[in-house]
Amino acid sequence: MKTVKAGILGIGNVGTGTYRTLQLNRDKIIESTGMDIEVTKILNRHPDRDRGITIDKNIYVQDAYDIINDPEIDIVVELIGGIEPATTFMADAIKNGKHVVTANKAALAEHGKMLQKLATQNGVMLRFEASVGGGIPIINALTSALLSNDFTEILGIVNGTTNYILTKMTEDGADYEAVLKEAQAKGFAEADPTGDVEGNDVANKLSILLSLVFGVEVPPSRIPTQGITAINKTDIAYANKFGCTIKLLAAAKKVDGKVECDVQPTLIPEEHPLASVNNEFNAIFLHGNAVDDIMFYGKGAGPLPTGSAVVGDMIAIAVAIDKQSAFDSKPLLRYDSDLEYMGEGKNQYYVRLSVDDMPGILGNISSTLGRYGIGIESMMQSTHSKNADETVPLVFIFYETNREVLDEAMEELKNRSFVKSVDSVIRVEK
Amino acid sequence: MKTVKAGILGIGNVGTGTYRTLQLNRDKIIESTGMDIEVTKILNRHPDRDRGITIDKNIYVQDAYDIINDPEIDIVVELIGGIEPATTFMADAIKNGKHVVTANKAALAEHGKMLQKLATQNGVMLRFEASVGGGIPIINALTSALLSNDFTEILGIVNGTTNYILTKMTEDGADYEAVLKEAQAKGFAEADPTGDVEGNDVANKLSILLSLVFGVEVPPSRIPTQGITAINKTDIAYANKFGCTIKLLAAAKKVDGKVECDVQPTLIPEEHPLASVNNEFNAIFLHGNAVDDIMFYGKGAGPLPTGSAVVGDMIAIAVAIDKQSAFDSKPLLRYDSDLEYMGEGKNQYYVRLSVDDMPGILGNISSTLGRYGIGIESMMQSTHSKNADETVPLVFIFYETNREVLDEAMEELKNRSFVKSVDSVIRVEK
Repeated sequence: MKTVKAGILGIGNVGTGTYRTLQLNRDKIIESTGMDIEVTKILNRHPDRDRGITIDKNIYVQDAYDIINDPEIDIVVELIGGIEPATTFMADAIKNGKHVVTANKAALAEHGKMLQKLATQNGVMLRFEASVGGGIPIINALTSALLSNDFTEILGIVNGTTNYILTKMTEDGADYEAVLKEAQAKGFAEADPTGDVEGNDVANKLSILLSLVFGVEVPPSRIPTQGITAINKTDIAYANKFGCTIKLLAAAKKVDGKVECDVQPTLIPEEHPLASVNNEFNAIFLHGNAVDDIMFYGKGAGPLPTGSAVVGDMIAIAVAIDKQSAFDSKPLLRYDSDLEYMGEGKNQYYVRLSVDDMPGILGNISSTLGRYGIGIESMMQSTHSKNADETVPLVFIFYETNREVLDEAMEELKNRSFVKSVDSVIRVEK
Repeated sequence: MKTVKAGILGIGNVGTGTYRTLQLNRDKIIESTGMDIEVTKILNRHPDRDRGITIDKNIYVQDAYDIINDPEIDIVVELIGGIEPATTFMADAIKNGKHVVTANKAALAEHGKMLQKLATQNGVMLRFEASVGGGIPIINALTSALLSNDFTEILGIVNGTTNYILTKMTEDGADYEAVLKEAQAKGFAEADPTGDVEGNDVANKLSILLSLVFGVEVPPSRIPTQGITAINKTDIAYANKFGCTIKLLAAAKKVDGKVECDVQPTLIPEEHPLASVNNEFNAIFLHGNAVDDIMFYGKGAGPLPTGSAVVGDMIAIAVAIDKQSAFDSKPLLRYDSDLEYMGEGKNQYYVRLSVDDMPGILGNISSTLGRYGIGIESMMQSTHSKNADETVPLVFIFYETNREVLDEAMEELKNRSFVKSVDSVIRVEK
């Protein structure tokens, strides 16, 4: 049995989950790989805080560089989160010839190219399974067993907080604010939920997937991103009438040599495998030219599920060290594709308007839409469900159109006297 | 760029899918791995048959040993199917120092232990991703990224034909025979569907999963196996009233140092992620002590999805050859666990009886069940839905009990004058 030594930077939720996973399954890991992974140092700035786990206090250090510069350590596991100082720590560890495992989507989305390049130059492995989909081994699958495919589509539910909120809104017919409070009380949403509910966390993960699957460099700031704060029970109820459910999706498609992508709430048909991914679960759905439709489902967060992914990466590195093949590992993050990046691209859309209850309106609207080349696939108008101000909701699903064209058409409609408001525009996935 | 040479035994559905996958994605594979996989020989006993694919006829051979004995060939891909001569071909290829890829669940379930031992002795890799779940990279995940887990449960929908039939029976309220005919007409079921509908194919796959996940040797003949031929629309309708759907499951659990397993139709609650796996799709659900619940979903059959898995294995071998680490690959199939194997174990069950429509019967039945220690979780009795012979259906879901005890209790009930018949006993997964 050979031993590989690891140092962990950060012992919060993911750090304790990682340590606990190693404790729980040490025998099993040795049995199936012949390798023992020993954590020799942990960066812990608050060594007296109760982590709900038994760790020998002698392995705690106060300075990250006690780990990064330790010649005995083979693997540095970065679990601090946030862009800095995590990125600098990882870069310095790589320069010192350490293999690096991280769960840090923000740092990778921002500096993945630099870190990957540095890892290749220094002949070390950079692994980050836990950064997308928590415990779901999607990155491993995409960079090994599924290399036999050219993928044309990614659709991911990759944020547990927002999926929990949307699920509860759907089940209880409740509105966003009420469910957010409940989620915060239960620990499914943070006190400041911005990064989750505004879609930024999802954009970081999509940026990583775009590099893995399509080899394109798209920083999260360039991904059209919309969170779930504008979703209300009315739209969820209409979506349901159209046989759909609303999910916050990371979406990317390869169309005619271009990559389209966006992060936004989306209507998906109830028969779609993503539609039944509920509560805090995550799932990543892909379409490949050989494997066809495929989906990976599991827990996107939580100490142990995330620990499962981190330890999976540590095992991969330990096995590669044992086989003396860790030094020339292929870069997982790729930025070498010719694919041109564009934003949201062409999609179907759900639109809800509030209009005056008078004849001729539908004809007027549909001829306006016609001038923009926007076709109506389905329409719902119910004079029985008048709004409080006596206007009536008019709900459409449009055929594929460009978002820019749609926005222009909506601007024009907004100026009509009989259009009270354009209440919602939501992407539709068929 | 380095080239690895492969020979394919058999060019039926999976063989053409494999060749086509390599053709389609050759550039992508070279780009992401630096390795080119060249198929230099194909065993094709009917070279003039149209395979719907362009293959240079000069690479066809008539004798498997032209491939197995070819010193130029690194990888032998066995896609003939059936136990023999496929097993002998694989064994001989391994003895000749060839790495072997196969999609053959029957040969592996029967002779996996021998083949794996031979591969380890000869320092070659034996890979078989396509043997379970078609294109779903479940074997890769279990033997790499998820090694950080100890698993306690496997539930798999691993046969597309039976899942298609059960889905159609559920959607259309149709009976088995009618849907089987439709499935045969559409090519989703074979002319002789026995191996699928009687559950043997599922038992083969479960036997492979038991070795991978639990390290136990359980030949398919020792797995309690029941197919879908006795499932009818009545039970599907009652299952639905209990909030469940019926799926043919490969099920295994680790309980108190023992492994329980069986293959049989099972009621699963509609909220379970497996419940919405429909038509010809497959899915494998697992529970790990770190990753928690996880599910892999995709196409379990078809030339290209299966080709995706076969080529994924070929890539893994090519990369290992390149890294000079193929010679000491860890065995994927393991038979070294101390876990004791037992059969079906304790489960909840759904039972439907036909009884005379008279007072006192329910009390009599429940006190009989009580003597066997069988508790009733739910019960449904509707005098409005009398059977043709004026008996009435009495439907139960029991709390956990041993199958043997349940069968004994049912034998006793059958002998009561007021019990016309025990119509159905179906496992329930909660």
